[in-house]
Amino acid sequence: MESLTKASMAVCPFVKASSVQSLRQLSMVHGGLANQARQCPFMSAALQAKEQGRSYSSASNPLKATAVPNTTTTAPKSNPYSFKTDQITGGSLNVNLSSNENKFDYNGFLENELEKKRVDKSYRFFNNINRLAHEFPKAHRTNETDKVTVWCSNDYLGMGKNAQTLAEMKRVLDTYGSGAGGTRNIAGHNRHAIKLESEVAALHKHEAALVFSSCFVANDAVLSMFGQKIKDLVIFSDELNHASMIQGIRNSRAKKEIFKHNDLKDLEARLAQYPKSTPKLIAFESVYSMCGSISPIEAICDLADKYGALTFLDEVHAVGMYGPHGAGVAEHLNFDVQLKTGISKPDVETVMNRIDMVTGTLGKAFGTVGGYVTGKAKLIDWFRSYAPGFIFTTTLPPAIMAGSSASIRYQRSTLADRINQQKNTRYVKNNLNDIGIPVIPNPSHIVPVLVGNAADAKRASDLLLDKHGIYVQAINFPTVPIGEERLRITPTPGHGPELSNQLIGALDSVFNELSLNRINDWENQGGLCGVGTPEKVNIEHIWTEEQLSLTDADLNPNVAEPLISPIGVSSGVSAY
Amino acid sequence: MESLTKASMAVCPFVKASSVQSLRQLSMVHGGLANQARQCPFMSAALQAKEQGRSYSSASNPLKATAVPNTTTTAPKSNPYSFKTDQITGGSLNVNLSSNENKFDYNGFLENELEKKRVDKSYRFFNNINRLAHEFPKAHRTNETDKVTVWCSNDYLGMGKNAQTLAEMKRVLDTYGSGAGGTRNIAGHNRHAIKLESEVAALHKHEAALVFSSCFVANDAVLSMFGQKIKDLVIFSDELNHASMIQGIRNSRAKKEIFKHNDLKDLEARLAQYPKSTPKLIAFESVYSMCGSISPIEAICDLADKYGALTFLDEVHAVGMYGPHGAGVAEHLNFDVQLKTGISKPDVETVMNRIDMVTGTLGKAFGTVGGYVTGKAKLIDWFRSYAPGFIFTTTLPPAIMAGSSASIRYQRSTLADRINQQKNTRYVKNNLNDIGIPVIPNPSHIVPVLVGNAADAKRASDLLLDKHGIYVQAINFPTVPIGEERLRITPTPGHGPELSNQLIGALDSVFNELSLNRINDWENQGGLCGVGTPEKVNIEHIWTEEQLSLTDADLNPNVAEPLISPIGVSSGVSAY
Repeated sequence: MESLTKASMAVCPFVKASSVQSLRQLSMVHGGLANQARQCPFMSAALQAKEQGRSYSSASNPLKATAVPNTTTTAPKSNPYSFKTDQITGGSLNVNLSSNENKFDYNGFLENELEKKRVDKSYRFFNNINRLAHEFPKAHRTNETDKVTVWCSNDYLGMGKNAQTLAEMKRVLDTYGSGAGGTRNIAGHNRHAIKLESEVAALHKHEAALVFSSCFVANDAVLSMFGQKIKDLVIFSDELNHASMIQGIRNSRAKKEIFKHNDLKDLEARLAQYPKSTPKLIAFESVYSMCGSISPIEAICDLADKYGALTFLDEVHAVGMYGPHGAGVAEHLNFDVQLKTGISKPDVETVMNRIDMVTGTLGKAFGTVGGYVTGKAKLIDWFRSYAPGFIFTTTLPPAIMAGSSASIRYQRSTLADRINQQKNTRYVKNNLNDIGIPVIPNPSHIVPVLVGNAADAKRASDLLLDKHGIYVQAINFPTVPIGEERLRITPTPGHGPELSNQLIGALDSVFNELSLNRINDWENQGGLCGVGTPEKVNIEHIWTEEQLSLTDADLNPNVAEPLISPIGVSSGVSAY
Repeated sequence: MESLTKASMAVCPFVKASSVQSLRQLSMVHGGLANQARQCPFMSAALQAKEQGRSYSSASNPLKATAVPNTTTTAPKSNPYSFKTDQITGGSLNVNLSSNENKFDYNGFLENELEKKRVDKSYRFFNNINRLAHEFPKAHRTNETDKVTVWCSNDYLGMGKNAQTLAEMKRVLDTYGSGAGGTRNIAGHNRHAIKLESEVAALHKHEAALVFSSCFVANDAVLSMFGQKIKDLVIFSDELNHASMIQGIRNSRAKKEIFKHNDLKDLEARLAQYPKSTPKLIAFESVYSMCGSISPIEAICDLADKYGALTFLDEVHAVGMYGPHGAGVAEHLNFDVQLKTGISKPDVETVMNRIDMVTGTLGKAFGTVGGYVTGKAKLIDWFRSYAPGFIFTTTLPPAIMAGSSASIRYQRSTLADRINQQKNTRYVKNNLNDIGIPVIPNPSHIVPVLVGNAADAKRASDLLLDKHGIYVQAINFPTVPIGEERLRITPTPGHGPELSNQLIGALDSVFNELSLNRINDWENQGGLCGVGTPEKVNIEHIWTEEQLSLTDADLNPNVAEPLISPIGVSSGVSAY
């Protein structure tokens, strides 16, 4: 209910003006605040979208079917399929999407659904942004001469333009063609899949890995399998987990416990409710992409040990970005040991080794597309053998897999890109802070600039684009809660001081032009999302100053061919 | 229960030897055949896998949690995330996947799950097959000198090696880099996405289209959304629908009616049970890939009109392959009209126009990767606005989208590939038939050679590969029912008489060597899957002789830029 109240604060003048005490009293009557909010046209749309996009409830849409009268009927044909090309069936046009008497009004339903999006300002307009490899981080809009600087891509390290990756992709396109031509089991398994899975497993120092079409699919497939296959499993899920994890957990139909974001006390209280013999899985992320927070991975592993839970860690926004070899936050937590370690595991226990499953993406810091899960060989073989989202889909193209391997290999052998990315991030954060632009405090590479309402966030984004040639997409509901709308800025190694100064100047101008809240305005309103809140939190970046001063000479590049044996293959692969 | 009986016939000598009457009687007692089958170690494994992979039931795995004693506990740490790289947590190794007292035995569970696959012979061994663009349809195995002919790829038209597609992909890689760098809403929307969606919509002559990571994702996302959003929706689903549709329907949690394969009478009986005002969706495929059957699309549209249902048609195995422009079976059903039609719709009603939603893939006949849905603009906008599997995932790389557009454009402008593919298919089917190799009869491009048990199917596939240099993957449970295992052969335009003769000779040899059932053996056993059955069915291929004699001069190539307006974009796209 807390988030509802927060959401209401942003939308509803009545709630905003009420004291905490009177809101509490109000929530006691008439079935609580949520019930009353449902009667308000604004809040009800927000609530409904929230339930659809983010909640774990299985409640279907409350819209009732509306019946309208029927006009047409046609008798079914007996001919199972027509081979007569001149036999054109006459009669009415496709009736299904238009109103028909007595039939469900599909058209009306769709109109209503889209109208809700327009009313609550969550209807999305896509920007046509064409990122140019040779002019990174520039892109052209619809017209090729209309160029802008991209400040919100998840190509965090600019690997999309990496010469080695591109050369490898073109080589493989020429040799092996444009597509895999089948599922992994039927004609779609090849050396590129074997190599990529070996690379990914080696990166995370896990026994095995499995590649999926995307990490959305990996998260959905893995989490839903657990709940469907392990009787009585309980999934413990951070409340800010990504939509793909929420979908997987929902589809798993397992019992779930949603714990407060990064709140170990709440997590432990929930774990302690169940007998040790109850199978459990804790699902969480390392870097939460919309606020940039980082989870207490070690402490969660400790709780998992104590209560007998498996750990599922989504490192989607961390792979490539943290750890000496870019394996993510889990690697970063044993930085010095990992920095010196070759392909074999360190002979001390590490956080990477304590995590049962890591999921990651090839589509952000590694610059291509696809997702994966890593873990013990038996676990990966179980996913390989049972997950429909893996079994029944076309393998990624050989060129994509080869390019991904090249990209991982490249990033494993250099610290430079992630260090430069971090330095640029600090430059932007510090300078925005100095002029009072509200950055939601966090220890990661994400720079979330708080705006606080959907209309202003979109206006700010449009102004940056049209007036300043800077592309930063507005992040609105349901990606973030209503009232916490923001501009999410993601510097890369290519966004040095010159471009950063342009961005900072442009933001300053836009904040003035739209009279957006600065840090002191949020302070006066009691603060939001850690901006201007009374209790100051001192956030240290996860990359320390000492780590940022390292060079590639300090790194064991760990670039030998990985020696991971693939599972479930008919022939040896030592010579791929 | 019919399929259980069929499955039992193949596995259980007791069931095989029993009369239909005694089986019927047996099914009346002890909770029915299924309950009794559960007590048999072979059938129970098969049943369980069936429930997990193919059924609509939400029942979780009946395996009970086994508790083993606990040995280690560690107190949770208070430090939310460690910045101290020298602070290596000591203590026990990751305990989660090893047996621990009092904790759920995750390891034992996984071992048991994998053992079941080994026992029922459904454990999969992947073949390392590297298809060579310049030696199509050859591939090399682990060693580059070990070459084989691929006869089971879904790159049905050999588009994976198409020069125009590959050139376009390389051009776009150079200009726009290796990845999209974001979701469609955040930095990942571009001219390539706009163009591809316009191409796809134009291909199917629908108002709009939406591209997904794969058609597995498209089917899952679209079907699950319908059930989740439209209260009281009933989904009518063909019993042979693909795993992706089954998953979508399952995740939709809508009420479902599974109708017998291509059985209009059963479908109508089920539709007629519900009031006209009840929202309904009929989900079916045009070409069913494992048996090659084709659905009665027009008659299903008639039923949809009569009962007020939406139609959802999966043309995954048909796009590129049927219709004068390769739009699928729906286009093929009005062949002559479509042959002459340019970019605009014909002024008569067509089957394409009667279908509400078509889903298709870019990863089979179009030779790249990805999936899509087409339909009315409002419907597509609804998916675009609400489907998590679309919203929260990285866009396909620009090069993949551009290559896909080039591939669709190419296939829209020529009949030659699909005609040659059909001719090669007939050559293989006719010649196999002449020597008594049992091909499951069907009117499509699929050549399913019946083997009838998992071990022999794998042996045959291994022999073909190792002795004859021919790669045809064995298709086993759960992709096909137990007892109906097969070799699924897919000729392409590149598999002319010479290669076909090699295949036919090799199959003849393998059938002799393994003493596999020929047509007359199946006849003697009463027949199976239409092979050797008493009632002879005369199957006409959907491509008529007359159509196979056409040339590209007969085709309106329909290659003008499509004029479809994209939905939900900020700026005009007329000049993309």
